This record gives sequence, structure tokens and C-alpha cells, in this order.
Amino acid sequence: MRQVDLNLEVPYSVRIGHGILHEISLPHRKVAVLADGAVAETYGNTVAVALSAGGSDARVYSLPPGEDAKAVSVYEGLLSTLARDGLTRDSAVVSVGGGAASDLAGFVAATYLRGIAFYTVPTTLLAMVDAAVGGKTGVNLPEGKNLAGAFHQPRGVWADLDTLATLPDRVFREGTAEVFKHGLLANPGICRDVLAPLFGPNYPGLEATVEAAVRVKAEVVARDPFEKGERAYLNFGHTLAHAFEAFTHREIPHGEAVAYGMHYAAHLSYLEGGTDLSNLTRAFLTYQRPRPLPPLDLADLLPYMARDKKADDEGLRFVLLRGMAQPYLARVGADTIERAWTAFQKDLPALAAEAVG
Amino acid sequence: MRQVDLNLEVPYSVRIGHGILHEISLPHRKVAVLADGAVAETYGNTVAVALSAGGSDARVYSLPPGEDAKAVSVYEGLLSTLARDGLTRDSAVVSVGGGAASDLAGFVAATYLRGIAFYTVPTTLLAMVDAAVGGKTGVNLPEGKNLAGAFHQPRGVWADLDTLATLPDRVFREGTAEVFKHGLLANPGICRDVLAPLFGPNYPGLEATVEAAVRVKAEVVARDPFEKGERAYLNFGHTLAHAFEAFTHREIPHGEAVAYGMHYAAHLSYLEGGTDLSNLTRAFLTYQRPRPLPPLDLADLLPYMARDKKADDEGLRFVLLRGMAQPYLARVGADTIERAWTAFQKDLPALAAEAVG
Repeated sequence: MRQVDLNLEVPYSVRIGHGILHEISLPHRKVAVLADGAVAETYGNTVAVALSAGGSDARVYSLPPGEDAKAVSVYEGLLSTLARDGLTRDSAVVSVGGGAASDLAGFVAATYLRGIAFYTVPTTLLAMVDAAVGGKTGVNLPEGKNLAGAFHQPRGVWADLDTLATLPDRVFREGTAEVFKHGLLANPGICRDVLAPLFGPNYPGLEATVEAAVRVKAEVVARDPFEKGERAYLNFGHTLAHAFEAFTHREIPHGEAVAYGMHYAAHLSYLEGGTDLSNLTRAFLTYQRPRPLPPLDLADLLPYMARDKKADDEGLRFVLLRGMAQPYLARVGADTIERAWTAFQKDLPALAAEAVG
Repeated sequence: MRQVDLNLEVPYSVRIGHGILHEISLPHRKVAVLADGAVAETYGNTVAVALSAGGSDARVYSLPPGEDAKAVSVYEGLLSTLARDGLTRDSAVVSVGGGAASDLAGFVAATYLRGIAFYTVPTTLLAMVDAAVGGKTGVNLPEGKNLAGAFHQPRGVWADLDTLATLPDRVFREGTAEVFKHGLLANPGICRDVLAPLFGPNYPGLEATVEAAVRVKAEVVARDPFEKGERAYLNFGHTLAHAFEAFTHREIPHGEAVAYGMHYAAHLSYLEGGTDLSNLTRAFLTYQRPRPLPPLDLADLLPYMARDKKADDEGLRFVLLRGMAQPYLARVGADTIERAWTAFQKDLPALAAEAVG
């Protein structure tokens, strides 16, 4: 087992290893296990059994699978349920599942009785290296993703790599986008790992790769927990990704949208004078094989991009790379946004052909 | 004008005076003024005009009057509206109205884009000395009041005493409950003021009384912003009050429920060995003239009391007084809860007769 410590005001640890689900024990009498519907009966129950063995009164609540959990109606229903079931300020919420489960469960924990203890058990690669670590929680609105939410740090994270073996191959590959992103932002070795021929749930170096990717995030979050500055770098590729997700009504899942978004951001970075990293983001797209994008005009996407949380009263901002591991935040002119879009679109047919071939 | 400073991590001031609504100016380009429907066209517009004069793009959003604003559906609708109207992380929310307006608007500000700037303009006595100061925000669930919420401090509070002159007399008297409570907790002079023959919106010493009551709260909040300890004292009388409100579907408004709740808590305090302060809380009930309580059994109220946020996994806790200005927090046995209830109920017919007479 490996461990990454987050040195925040209230510090906590991310444990990464095989079979660690069975070891979970918490100092709370009542624990609500909020589990993605797809894993409630498997990992959700495993966690509840471990908690009960440790003396907690643990109960599993099944969430709508995936992103459907992040609805205000689901949030409201859960708050009522926890109240009826008598959870107090001393009780805890544990999320089991992907990023959607931890976002939703974290927002429930952040706001139930103005905040109770929260723990996460990520069961997707994406959640392990991103959503489950760092305390961002939230729900979606019809107007966009994560428009309501709170910062609420978990008090502990258990990333059991055994859970990755049961993920559909496409979902595993989807999650590698956030791993790759952490490589681009701070650690080129991670990018080499992800593009290695044998990379997958059974990759011998997986535990080390996940640890390295979590460490990138942990260090940024510890320096800037409330995203006043450098934490925004973790949104590399996300401005366009969120627009793709919203515009396609989430037909393009988050990790695939981020893969496209990173490739676009690489073009943008190059046009703004940075090293050309588009070969690397293109190689990642070839590995990940995201769903093809529907025909899209930039004009369709701009309103969604303007709702990005990095936008301020002065307009749109993007995370760019001067070179490998050299992120910065910048306003970009409308003509550059358009030229990068043209370059990005030119690459799409070749990618589609490779995916088929 | 008087000013009370809250010495929190991010300090802010409560301004108390006459006509200060017209002086509001904020360093934000976009400002959403969330105003109670009863005052949106009057004080809401006054605030928006002042903000616009200061260079902000201010828009008034009218809330359902009173406690009806604190519904999850209202909360959700406002988040969507702010997103559609293009509010960014640099924008601000200003609440105008009573405690319900600031609770709801504060929760919107706490969670929109994971938190934006918040300011309050309380226009009831209750909100001036309690809800608008201290950063507690929240909405109600069918299961109870304020079960969802967050701590989100305002960055500034403007208490314009001119707004109190337009309150219905009963609403003014309702608000005096929280003023009186702050007197019981920390400053006997406040209790004397409230029970003075001329006390009302035109009482010559009102500005000083409001300042003193705000100061009691400000000092407690500065020492314990997240209610880990002594801040719970501010809930004196509130355990039973919340149960009254919930059980009567809020037919008994908050300030009147608190007046009853304080009288009950005075009986409880005496039974637990404290000075008998029930004459004082009874005198306050005679002054305030709350609506009569419907016939109630203690058994009906206990489930609501158990949902109180002070409850923990060990059971019910109450704020009690050893004597004037000597609050403490204690578990109370079921028999004492019952004996205090009997004593409390004995006082009710006499109070009702006085109110009629």
C-alpha cells in the first residue's frame, strides 16, 4: 500500500493499494454509504460490512448511476433521507463510486446540518486521481456542470486498485485523461506510463502511476485549497471539455471530453507561443479512442465556455502550457480561439480513421 | 452611525444607523440583490439604486415572502437564474429582508460556483441582531428547519433602523426575542431596555440597544465561528422553538417560538439547579404577546427536538442558564424535560388571559 498525505489545515491521507476496501474503519456511530447504483451491491456493501465490523451503524444508499446522481432532486432527496434516518453532526458520509458519486455525496456532507464528516472510496481511475481528492463537491444545473457546490475536504480516501479490474475497458481509458493531464502539468514520467504499450488495469506499475498522479493533485491542492491561484491549472483542457459535455448533453463522457479539450488547449498553447505539445495530446487521443464528436461549430460552444468558473467579469480564461510541466493562466483573444479550433478540427478525421482502423 | 466589527479570518463590519441604505456601494461589477417579496419594490430597489450609483450592474430578484423563500426549489431556481444572467466568481449577492432572506441568499452565495461574495441588508429587528450576522445560511426540508446549509460569512452588513418603522408592530415585537436572548446570555442591560415602557421602533435608545445585541453575537461568533463550542449558546430557547415551528407548520413564527422556548429553557435551568429566571422570561412573554400555542403534548414535540442540530449520537442537549449571563450546554434527563414541560404549560392560561385583558 502507498500513501499520499494532503497537508491541509485538517490533514488527511489517500491510501492506494490492492484489497484495501476491506480495511475501512471509522470513528463514527452512524455512517451513510452513498454508492453509485452500479456498485452499491458490490463495493458499497463491502464497505458497509467493513464499517459494521469496526462498530459503526452503516447503511448503503444507492445513487442513480454516473452523472445522473448529480441532480438537485437527488441531493434534496438524500438530505431528507439522512434527516429521517437520524444522522447527527457526529455522523459521517462515505462515497463509493466514480467522480459523480463523490461530487454529490461530498455536497450532501458539506451542507447536511451545515457540514458533517466525509470520506471517499473512489472505484474509477478518474475519481482516484481527481474527483475524490481535493474537496471539490457539487451538483449540475440545466445551465452547466458543477454550478452549485462547496469546498469540503474528505477526512480520508481509500483507492482500491482491485476495483479497476471490473471497470469496462472504455471507462478505464476514459479515466486515464486526468492521469495524463497531471503528467502534462507536472510530471512527464506519468505521460510515458500512460502511453506505455501494456498500460491498463493490470499494468505492473499502476500503483506507482496512480500514486504519482495523486501526488501532483495533492501538492497543488495543499498550496491552494480554494482555487485562488494555481489550483486552476488542474482545469487544463476543461473549458472546452465542459462545453462539449453540456452541448452533447453528456453523450461525450467527462474523461473523453477532457482528452479532446487537452488537445485543443495544446493547439491554443502553441499559438500563444508555447512548445508544440499537440503531438503528445494527439498520441493520447489515439490511445484513449474517445467517442467521435458530433458536427460542431465554435459558435455553439462559446456560450458554454463563457459559463466556465474560470471566467470572470473580464471574460474567458484558459489554462495553457509554455512547455511540458509549465502551466499558466491567460486570457486568449477571439481570433486565437478560432484559429486553434480550426487546427483542432483538422485533426479529427484522421483520429476517427485510426479508431476504426 | 454605530459599527460593530467581527474579528474573523476575513473581518467585516456591521453598520447600524438611520438612512444608511442609501450609502451602500460595492466593489463588484455584477450584483444580485435577493430581496424578500414584501420589500423588493421598496428597500430592494433603494439598495439597487445605491449600488448602480456606485458603478455596479445591480438587479433585484424578488423572493417569496418570509420563510417560504427557504425552499430547495427556490434555491435551485435562483442558482439557474444567476447562471443564465452571467454572474461570475467576481460577482456578489446582497440579501434584503428578514432572516429568511439572508439565510436563503447566503446559501445561494455560499454554493453558487462553490462560493461568491455575500452582503446582507437586514430589514427586521430579528435579522439585524441575529440572522444577518455570523454566516449561518440554509434552507428548510420537510423534516425540519435549516437542515441543509453552510457557514458563509457576509463581507458587510448594513442595518438601517429606518426600515423598522415600516414593520407591522407584531413583527417588530417578534424580533425582540433574539434581542432579549442576547441580554439573557451576556448583557442584562439589554433585557432592561426591551422591557422598558417605551421600547419600540421609535425608542430613543434603540440604536444603542441594537448595537449591544449585535455585539453579544459578534463576540461569540468571532471566538467560535463554526459552532464547535460556545456559539451553541446562541441557541438558548431554540430546541423547543424549532419543534413548535415545525409541529405547527410555522403558524408560530420564529421569534414567538423562541419567546416560548426561552421560558421553557428557564424552567429547565431552574430544575437543573440554576437561578430561577422564569419571572424574567415570563415578563418578556407578557410584553411580546405571542400567538397562543395550540394544544400540544410533549410526546408530539420530542421527535422534532431530537432533530435539533445540537443533538449528537448520545442524545438531546439543551442550552441552560446557571444565572443571568451564565450559559452552559447540558444533557437533560427525560423526567426533567417532562417536569419543565408541566411547569411551562401551567403558565400558558395566565399568559393568554393577560394578552386578552
